[in-house]
Amino acid sequence: MSHRIGIDLGGSKIALGLVSPADEILARRRIDTNAAAGLERVVKRIADEVEALAATLTSEEAVAAVGVGAPGPLDHIKGELLTLVNLPGISNSPFRRVLSERLALPVALDHDAKVAALGEFHFGAGRGRDSMIYIVIGTGVGAAIIYQGALFYGEGNSAGECGHMTVDPRGRPCHCGSRGCLEAYTGGPALSRQYAEMTGDDITGADIAARARSGDERALQVFIDAGRALGIAIASLAMTLNIETFVIGGSVAKAGDLLLEPAHETLPGYAFRAVSERVRVVASRLGEDAPILGAAHMAKRLL
Amino acid sequence: MSHRIGIDLGGSKIALGLVSPADEILARRRIDTNAAAGLERVVKRIADEVEALAATLTSEEAVAAVGVGAPGPLDHIKGELLTLVNLPGISNSPFRRVLSERLALPVALDHDAKVAALGEFHFGAGRGRDSMIYIVIGTGVGAAIIYQGALFYGEGNSAGECGHMTVDPRGRPCHCGSRGCLEAYTGGPALSRQYAEMTGDDITGADIAARARSGDERALQVFIDAGRALGIAIASLAMTLNIETFVIGGSVAKAGDLLLEPAHETLPGYAFRAVSERVRVVASRLGEDAPILGAAHMAKRLL
Repeated sequence: MSHRIGIDLGGSKIALGLVSPADEILARRRIDTNAAAGLERVVKRIADEVEALAATLTSEEAVAAVGVGAPGPLDHIKGELLTLVNLPGISNSPFRRVLSERLALPVALDHDAKVAALGEFHFGAGRGRDSMIYIVIGTGVGAAIIYQGALFYGEGNSAGECGHMTVDPRGRPCHCGSRGCLEAYTGGPALSRQYAEMTGDDITGADIAARARSGDERALQVFIDAGRALGIAIASLAMTLNIETFVIGGSVAKAGDLLLEPAHETLPGYAFRAVSERVRVVASRLGEDAPILGAAHMAKRLL
Repeated sequence: MSHRIGIDLGGSKIALGLVSPADEILARRRIDTNAAAGLERVVKRIADEVEALAATLTSEEAVAAVGVGAPGPLDHIKGELLTLVNLPGISNSPFRRVLSERLALPVALDHDAKVAALGEFHFGAGRGRDSMIYIVIGTGVGAAIIYQGALFYGEGNSAGECGHMTVDPRGRPCHCGSRGCLEAYTGGPALSRQYAEMTGDDITGADIAARARSGDERALQVFIDAGRALGIAIASLAMTLNIETFVIGGSVAKAGDLLLEPAHETLPGYAFRAVSERVRVVASRLGEDAPILGAAHMAKRLL
């Protein structure tokens, strides 16, 4: 087993990690994405960072493969980025081929939530489990399903849009055009909107969490409502898929028990007892290392 | 490929079919289940019917394997029936081993919804598809998920309890103790209860369907509400799993478009357009033949 590099390609930042044969991150780099500069430029800057990481190895060691997690939609089989709303400069591109040719290394590419899920599954909060659902809650809400060790893609490669599961058909309007989507209760902007409606203060989810911890009842209520919506969605997923481990990542998950406790408390009301008793809802353990370790894990199949 | 026998073991009836190497049902038998008589007696009566069916074959032909669909919970790997509320006489029994020894034939056993789903997937409404979700709506509501040709079991073998997905968290109480479960809107007893609340008439789902077809507005409304709940559940399943073919079976599905049209109409309001445009919700094509053909198909792996 050789060294690999795991890359988390985000809308604003690109994080890279040099990962050892023992799946430890030996060194990290972080640069601005600056996608507007276009594909060739972004790939060149990634390649510069990969080379800087590789240069830290001894002469007997080498980087053998690279894994990349990127925002969707993308085609993980063809290695192409599709129409990325937040990354127009590199949208609709054969990203994997261009990066692989530039590096002269094999490259694996998959959706960021799936890659982070692989990290948590193999090295973090899902370690030792057979199956797991990773729910990433940030600006948007998405998920990746791992069943019997393998990612679940669906027929058109878009499985995991659980942010738009309906948790209340007459509930809050969602920016997607529907009503009562999970994302309309748990996404960062949804938290800010609800708190602003209650108080007039337009602050971030992290600030609402800080106020909740200081005893602000309305801030607490925002997380209770969000956690309740999350619990309802998890109950339906657990009943339908009989998967027991739910790992919650993304920026909103940093609220920890403010979000997870009401989710746990809601579960028994919306699932069979035999099911809810076995479900564990836990916070991501690896945080920002999850996509790096997951991408490097994914790259193992190229070796 | 040899002849097989497919068996649909139900709460009140046992239906058996002799299935040809070309997957055609050549002959059928039907007996009362009479589970209260106990395991040995039920198995003996099934064996008598199997032998009667086998006796219709020529001397060059033979039955090579048997497949059985039965109510859950059951353990398809060990071949055991677990605690079956409606079949106490044969609950908690090594059903597959006992039947196999009695017949001197290999026997496969799985959950009735999964077996019917296999029938529709290979020979009915899901033929030619990669993946499919079969939702059976009768007294209860359950589902079987087929992904890339294989049944999805979940970690504890209980995937598919989509009758207890939440379609409205403040909705109708369900007998399971939760609120707003899909089953509380679409199950046969739920249809009767809603119609009785509206009219005072306590009639079956089939009778409500007949009244709806005669223009009874309140009967129509019962199916509109049921179809709407079904559409919300299907939208969430389609967003989460990216599976596009939904086949609806069970006695309530006999209402056909009374149920399926409002389901279809509800979908776009609760799923991305790119998803709802690709989803097909269709009625079971094989009806009561689905479990027989599915059970016989399942038995192929024993040959």
